[in-house]
Amino acid sequence: MSFLHVSKFCQQGGRCFQPTSRNTCIRILSPAFLGSASYVDWRQPWLVDNNRRWYSHENGGYQKKPSLWKWGLGLVGSLGVVGSALYWKISHQKLHAAEVEAGVLKTGLPTYVRTDVAKHKTAESRIWVTYRNGVYDITDYVSEHPGGNKILLGAGAAIDPFWEMYGVHKQAEIFAMLEKYRIGNITEVEEKKEADKKDPYGNDPKRHPALKPASEKPFNAEPPPSLLIHSYLTPNDLFFIRNHLPVPVIDPKTFSLQVAVEKENGGAKLSLDDLKSKFPKKSVTTTIQCSGNRRSEMIKIKSVKGLNWGIAAISTAEWSGVTLDAILKHSGIDIDKVDCKHVQFEGMDKGPDGATYGASIPIEIARSLKNEIIVAYKMNGKDIPRDHGYPLRIIIPGIVGARQVKWLNKIVLSKEESSSHWQQRDYKGFNSSIDWHNVDFSKAQAIQELPIVSAICEPAEGEMLEDAEEVTIKGYAWSGGGRGIYRVDVSADGGKTWHEADLNSNNQSPYKAWAWTLWEATVPLPKSSKNTQLICKAIDSSYNCQPDSVEGIWNLRGVLSNAWHRVSVTIPNDQR
Amino acid sequence: MSFLHVSKFCQQGGRCFQPTSRNTCIRILSPAFLGSASYVDWRQPWLVDNNRRWYSHENGGYQKKPSLWKWGLGLVGSLGVVGSALYWKISHQKLHAAEVEAGVLKTGLPTYVRTDVAKHKTAESRIWVTYRNGVYDITDYVSEHPGGNKILLGAGAAIDPFWEMYGVHKQAEIFAMLEKYRIGNITEVEEKKEADKKDPYGNDPKRHPALKPASEKPFNAEPPPSLLIHSYLTPNDLFFIRNHLPVPVIDPKTFSLQVAVEKENGGAKLSLDDLKSKFPKKSVTTTIQCSGNRRSEMIKIKSVKGLNWGIAAISTAEWSGVTLDAILKHSGIDIDKVDCKHVQFEGMDKGPDGATYGASIPIEIARSLKNEIIVAYKMNGKDIPRDHGYPLRIIIPGIVGARQVKWLNKIVLSKEESSSHWQQRDYKGFNSSIDWHNVDFSKAQAIQELPIVSAICEPAEGEMLEDAEEVTIKGYAWSGGGRGIYRVDVSADGGKTWHEADLNSNNQSPYKAWAWTLWEATVPLPKSSKNTQLICKAIDSSYNCQPDSVEGIWNLRGVLSNAWHRVSVTIPNDQR
Repeated sequence: MSFLHVSKFCQQGGRCFQPTSRNTCIRILSPAFLGSASYVDWRQPWLVDNNRRWYSHENGGYQKKPSLWKWGLGLVGSLGVVGSALYWKISHQKLHAAEVEAGVLKTGLPTYVRTDVAKHKTAESRIWVTYRNGVYDITDYVSEHPGGNKILLGAGAAIDPFWEMYGVHKQAEIFAMLEKYRIGNITEVEEKKEADKKDPYGNDPKRHPALKPASEKPFNAEPPPSLLIHSYLTPNDLFFIRNHLPVPVIDPKTFSLQVAVEKENGGAKLSLDDLKSKFPKKSVTTTIQCSGNRRSEMIKIKSVKGLNWGIAAISTAEWSGVTLDAILKHSGIDIDKVDCKHVQFEGMDKGPDGATYGASIPIEIARSLKNEIIVAYKMNGKDIPRDHGYPLRIIIPGIVGARQVKWLNKIVLSKEESSSHWQQRDYKGFNSSIDWHNVDFSKAQAIQELPIVSAICEPAEGEMLEDAEEVTIKGYAWSGGGRGIYRVDVSADGGKTWHEADLNSNNQSPYKAWAWTLWEATVPLPKSSKNTQLICKAIDSSYNCQPDSVEGIWNLRGVLSNAWHRVSVTIPNDQR
Repeated sequence: MSFLHVSKFCQQGGRCFQPTSRNTCIRILSPAFLGSASYVDWRQPWLVDNNRRWYSHENGGYQKKPSLWKWGLGLVGSLGVVGSALYWKISHQKLHAAEVEAGVLKTGLPTYVRTDVAKHKTAESRIWVTYRNGVYDITDYVSEHPGGNKILLGAGAAIDPFWEMYGVHKQAEIFAMLEKYRIGNITEVEEKKEADKKDPYGNDPKRHPALKPASEKPFNAEPPPSLLIHSYLTPNDLFFIRNHLPVPVIDPKTFSLQVAVEKENGGAKLSLDDLKSKFPKKSVTTTIQCSGNRRSEMIKIKSVKGLNWGIAAISTAEWSGVTLDAILKHSGIDIDKVDCKHVQFEGMDKGPDGATYGASIPIEIARSLKNEIIVAYKMNGKDIPRDHGYPLRIIIPGIVGARQVKWLNKIVLSKEESSSHWQQRDYKGFNSSIDWHNVDFSKAQAIQELPIVSAICEPAEGEMLEDAEEVTIKGYAWSGGGRGIYRVDVSADGGKTWHEADLNSNNQSPYKAWAWTLWEATVPLPKSSKNTQLICKAIDSSYNCQPDSVEGIWNLRGVLSNAWHRVSVTIPNDQR
C-alpha cells in the first residue's frame, strides 16, 4: 500500500494541470501513478490508495455516504474543456468489461417502471435515475456534482443520453461507481402495461424528462439550451420533438413506401428491406428547425397562435438512407424531366378525421437537392426513434422542419402543392399588420428555406454570472438553403460594441452547410453596471443578417422569429 | 374634314378613361375615331382634325410656339400605367418612315459637338437635346411636358435612352413634332477631337448626362431612381456604371479570351467570332448590384470609405452569350471534376502599375451555376457598351457586381482565390466595431451572393406629395442567389401599419429569380401630420428579411447597406 499526498505530487512537478483547486488537481492522476487497481480512496482526501476501495459493500443501494465530492472529482476532469488531454488512460479491456456490466438486469433487486422512477426527482422523494436497465438512487451525490445542476436534468429519468453526450463519463471507474448506487431494475415490458388504450396518445413513446414540453398531446418539446451546444450532433433522446398528431405504431415488417407520379401508372412500392439492401446508403448531417423556434419572444410583444417554443426547437443529426434521386430512378421517374411542380410527402400520423400529415416542396428545390434529400432510416447511426419518424423520415437539407415529413409512407410527384392544412393554412409568413381578422393564407407562400438565425444558449436569461470581468457566451447559428455561417457578432454591453465569436462549422462548405455552426466568445463585461444585455447576431454566406427587433417581424403565427437574440444577465460585483 | 369636341365625346360614352382632366381624357383617342390620317390638331385644344397638321413648316428649328401642353398630351398617355392599352395605333409604314427620318444628318444646318449641347441645360441658356444626329432646342416646350420635370433629365444631352425607355414616344406624330425643333447636327467624329490624349481617362466613352456621377475618374454613376422603375430592363445608357480604372480601348478583331487551368497545359484561346459562331447563344436576365449601393445611408451614421452611392447602383439587363460550361468543355475542362477551388476572372482594365482588375468565385458557385453563368457579348440585344465591358463581360447571376468582371479576357481555374486587391482587401463585410485601426481583411469572406434589399424610388426624399389622402410608392426589391421576392411591405406612417405591395417579378421562378422585382403600392397617409416617413422592406423566398436599422449593419467600407429604406415626405394639407 502506498499513499501519496496529491498536493505534494503537484509540488513535485508531476503532470499537474495548474493545481489551483481540488477539482483541477485531480486531473493529474495518471495510470502509472494510480497503479493497476486505479482506484482512488476518496474518503481520504488528497490521498491515493492503490489497493483500497472507497465503497464498502457489493450489492446496490446506498448505505453509507462516501465523501461525495469525490465522484464529482472523477467527473469534473471529463467536463473540462482543456483538461481532457490529461485524463488518465484506462485499458480498453477494462473499460469494455465495465461498460458491458453497467445497467444490466440484476437478479434479486426490485423491478420498477419509468413512472415509478419519474416520481423521484427531488431530494425529499430521493433522486433516482436509470442507466440502461439499472435504477440508481443518487440523492446524496447530487450536491457535489462538478457539472452543477446539470445532473438534475436526468432526475427521475434516464441518464443514458447525457452520458452519450458527455462521452467522458464512460470510464471504468465511473461505471463501477454508478453500480454502487444500484437499487433496482427497470423493464420496458412493464411499461407497456401502463398505456391507456383509450387515449389516442396512449401509444406515444416515453420521452426523456430533460425535454421541456411545449405541449403534451401532441407531444412537443425542446431540450435545455445549454445541452445543445455541448454536442455538434444532438443525441436522439434530446433532439427537439415536433409532433402534430399521435405517434403511429408501425410494423416494420409490413411497412412500405409508395412512390408515384400523380394520376399516372407506374411508380414503386418499397419495403424497409428494399431500401436498406437495394440502394447505396448515403448520410447527410443536417440541422432541423421548427419554423416556430423562438416564438416565445414574439409572444412577449403580442399574443400569437402557436406553441410557446424557447430557443431550442432546433437540433442536428446525421441522417442515413437513400437519396430521393435513387428512389425516383428506381421507380421509373426522372425528376429533371417529369412534368410536375411539386413533390408531396405523406406521413402515417393520422388525426381523428383520418387525415394524415402531409407537406410538399417545389420541384425546383427537389431537383437541385435530388442527391442531398434522403429518405432516412437511421438517425445518428441508430434506427430513427418513434418520435422522429420510425421507420422513415424525409430529410430535406436547409428546409423548415414542417416539410420533412415523419413516418413517411408516400412520395407523390404532382402538379399541385400538398393540400394539407399545414401546407395551405399554416407555416406561412405575414407582416405585422395582418392578424386573424384580415389574414388570407392563400396570399402567402409556404415556408421552405429558412432565414438566418442564431441564439445564445449560455448564459441563460436572468442568470447571475460567475465572473465580473468577462463572460463566455455560447450558442448556435444556422441558415437555410445550405448557406454557411460567415460570422457571429456578440455583444456584452447591449449592442454598443461587438466581438467576433469563434466558430465550429464542422468543416462544412459555406455553400453546402446543411448543419449549424456552434460558436463561443469570451468578451469583457461593462465596468459600471450590475446588469447587462448579451446579444448575438449572425451573418450567412449570402451576407444575410438577422433583423434587429422582434417588433419588425412579429406575425400572427409567430413563425420565423430570427431577430437578434438578447439575454439579460446580472454581473456579480458589489462595487457596481 | 371633321371636328369633334373631345369632352363631348367623353360625355357621349366613348372609350374614355375617366376624363377628369385634359391629360387623362386624351387617352381615349381611338384609331377609329381619329380616322385614317390619325393626326391631332393640337393648336385647337379638344378638337380633332383628320387632315390638318398642327405644325406649319418643314425645316428644323423652333419658329412658332405651338400650344405647348399639346406635345405634353401626346406624351402623357405614354406614361400612364393603365392607359397604355388604349393608345391609338399608327400604321407600321408611317411610323417606320417617321422613325427613319428622325435625327438623321441634315444638310444646311450648323454642326455641334456634345460639349456644345451640354452648355444648354437651362431656360436662360436655352435647353437643347439630341436625338441620334439631330440637335433640338426644346426650351419653350419644357414647362408643359406632361411628364413634369423628368424631361430635364435629358437637358444638354441625348434623349435617345429616355425614348428607348418610354417606347411610346416612338410615334409618327412625335417624331415629326421633334423635327420641328431641329436646330443642328451632331457628329461623333467631331467629339473625338476633344479627347485629351494625356489623360488616362481621355479615352473613356461619353456618358448620358442623366447619370449622376459618384466619381468622374474612374467614372462611376447611377441613374435617377425614378427612371429605374419605369422599365424592367434598364436601358444600356442608363445602366449604373462601376469602373475601377480607365475604360480600355479594345480592338474586337485582335481580341481573344484565354481559358485555362492554372499551372496546366491545355485550355483554349477564343476570338469574338469563335464565341459568336461556335457556341449556342444563351440569354439570361439578371440584376447587377454594386455592394456599395445605398452607401450614402451608412455615411450619414459615420463616415466610411467608398463612393457615395444613392439607391440606384443597381440595374437589370438581358445578357446574351455563351455559358461558362460550354466554354470550359470546349477548352477541355470538366468543371465538375477539375481539382480547383476557385474560378478567376481577369479584365483588360489596367491601373498605372499595369495590374488588371480581377476577381474570383468559389468553384461550388461556378458548378451550381455552370449553365447560368454567361460570357456575355450582348447587353439588351446590343453589343455591350464600352462602359459595361465591351466586348465581353462575365455574368454570374445572383452575385455582387464586383465579381462580374468587365472587359473579360482570361478565365483561370485555380486552387486559389484571385489575389487582386478587390478580392482580398475590399468588398468584404465586418461588424460595426471594426474600423480602419483594427481591421484584418484576411479574417472576412469575400462578398459573393448578396442579401435581400429593396428601396423606394418614388416619391423621392423630401418630396412634397401631390395628394393628401394617399400616396403611390414604387421601388425595386432583389435578393442574391436566385431567391425571388415573396413580399414587399410598405408603410406610409413610419412603420406603424404595413401594406403589401403589388409585385412584378417578370414571372421568374422564386428559386431562379436572377432579376429584380419591381413593386408599387398605394397606401393611405396619416391624417394628422404634415410630414411622414415612407418605409419599404422585402422578404425573399428563404423568408430572409432586411435589417431594421442602418446602425446595426454599419461597416467601415459601407457595403451591404440593406436596412429598411426610409423616405421622408411632406403631405400637402393646410388643415394639418
